[in-house]
Amino acid sequence: MPAAPRALLLDVFGTCVDWRSGVARAVRAAAPPGVGVDAGAVADAWRARYQPQLETVRSGARPWVDLDTLHREALDDVLAAHGLDGLDGEARDDLTRAWHRLDPWPDTVAALARMRRHAVVAPLSNGHIALIVALSRHAGMTWDAVLGAEPARSYKPRPEVYLQGVEALGLRPGEAMMVACHASDLVAADACGLRTAFVRRPLEHGPRGAAEEPPEVAGLVADDLGALADALGFDPG
Amino acid sequence: MPAAPRALLLDVFGTCVDWRSGVARAVRAAAPPGVGVDAGAVADAWRARYQPQLETVRSGARPWVDLDTLHREALDDVLAAHGLDGLDGEARDDLTRAWHRLDPWPDTVAALARMRRHAVVAPLSNGHIALIVALSRHAGMTWDAVLGAEPARSYKPRPEVYLQGVEALGLRPGEAMMVACHASDLVAADACGLRTAFVRRPLEHGPRGAAEEPPEVAGLVADDLGALADALGFDPG
Repeated sequence: MPAAPRALLLDVFGTCVDWRSGVARAVRAAAPPGVGVDAGAVADAWRARYQPQLETVRSGARPWVDLDTLHREALDDVLAAHGLDGLDGEARDDLTRAWHRLDPWPDTVAALARMRRHAVVAPLSNGHIALIVALSRHAGMTWDAVLGAEPARSYKPRPEVYLQGVEALGLRPGEAMMVACHASDLVAADACGLRTAFVRRPLEHGPRGAAEEPPEVAGLVADDLGALADALGFDPG
Repeated sequence: MPAAPRALLLDVFGTCVDWRSGVARAVRAAAPPGVGVDAGAVADAWRARYQPQLETVRSGARPWVDLDTLHREALDDVLAAHGLDGLDGEARDDLTRAWHRLDPWPDTVAALARMRRHAVVAPLSNGHIALIVALSRHAGMTWDAVLGAEPARSYKPRPEVYLQGVEALGLRPGEAMMVACHASDLVAADACGLRTAFVRRPLEHGPRGAAEEPPEVAGLVADDLGALADALGFDPG
């Protein structure tokens, strides 16, 4: 087995936290009494706006803006399409902050603590720093630093996000491992020279959602973050 | 008493860690057998190069470079002035990394953990991210994010360092409190609209060094970080 990576860089939405359940819960709480709403479908529709929105920044068509801004912009259409146009501005702002209050998967918090005893551990997320800080405090996730889209002023899977994260830690790409439940994230990290680990999150898209399969480039494949710590040879502590 | 700040931004060298003892210890360990060296004086001389070096970056005379680079540049002259020119390049590089292995003051680790239960807590240091990450792992200091000179691409006390740190947390300046044992740091933070707390570190410059006094602008003055947590009304946990 090769030496353990000096740093683990983790995707957050999906890999560490269950965004769909948390957003759906907030949608249900925000819906006016008597309004029937498929909260999971609202969460899915909201998330579906995400990649096209990020592409406007990645392509340079618009300057870098944070995820709160993008989430809030997408929300009006999503609510209109699901019979929730009655929500006022304050309710919409609060619903946008649902992305700050997502719960971790059951294995996440203990696995991150275990990983931090052996390696530098940082999120490499498209979430901006204020969002990741709030979310991490809510979920009980502790990091060595917060890296990702905001310091790099771009969005994954643009190579500068991975390379800026590695450089900020004073490492070479091959000394870091990108950890994600999304194949595209690992394909991009691999192209930048990072090591990669795919973590299965079969419930990311809900109990009836499709489970994502690891890409061919994945150096490791694990059933959750605890299993990844096992695979890296990290003692259970 | 006004509401507690939403974020505490802490100076690190001097305020959280005892740089002089740690650097002096590394100098003693690096000195060839039989070479008498006043290790504390070497540490003082090295640190004395710091502000003039930072000024070359703050003034725009040179592009932003990290503290490892500045420490390494200053070291050759410092060693020559103290009869240590015999150290080879590897020993000099290792000595430069002494700034990554400093010990916390006795109150630091517990106080930071206590503060993090009540507020966002982040370093706002002139140390770059890789240095602060290594130092924090050595010292057992845990943060919500690592802010400071590197993300702002300038050095304190330039206003952009304070303002970038506050903005990265999604806060207004008055919602954050700068915590430092150096008057100049707090004067600059105050001018940017941050709240301020002065922490006395009478041993920063060694047992015979002068103790720094709080500036007039200091909103709070505390004998250490635990006393500051008391003054902020944070329960001892």
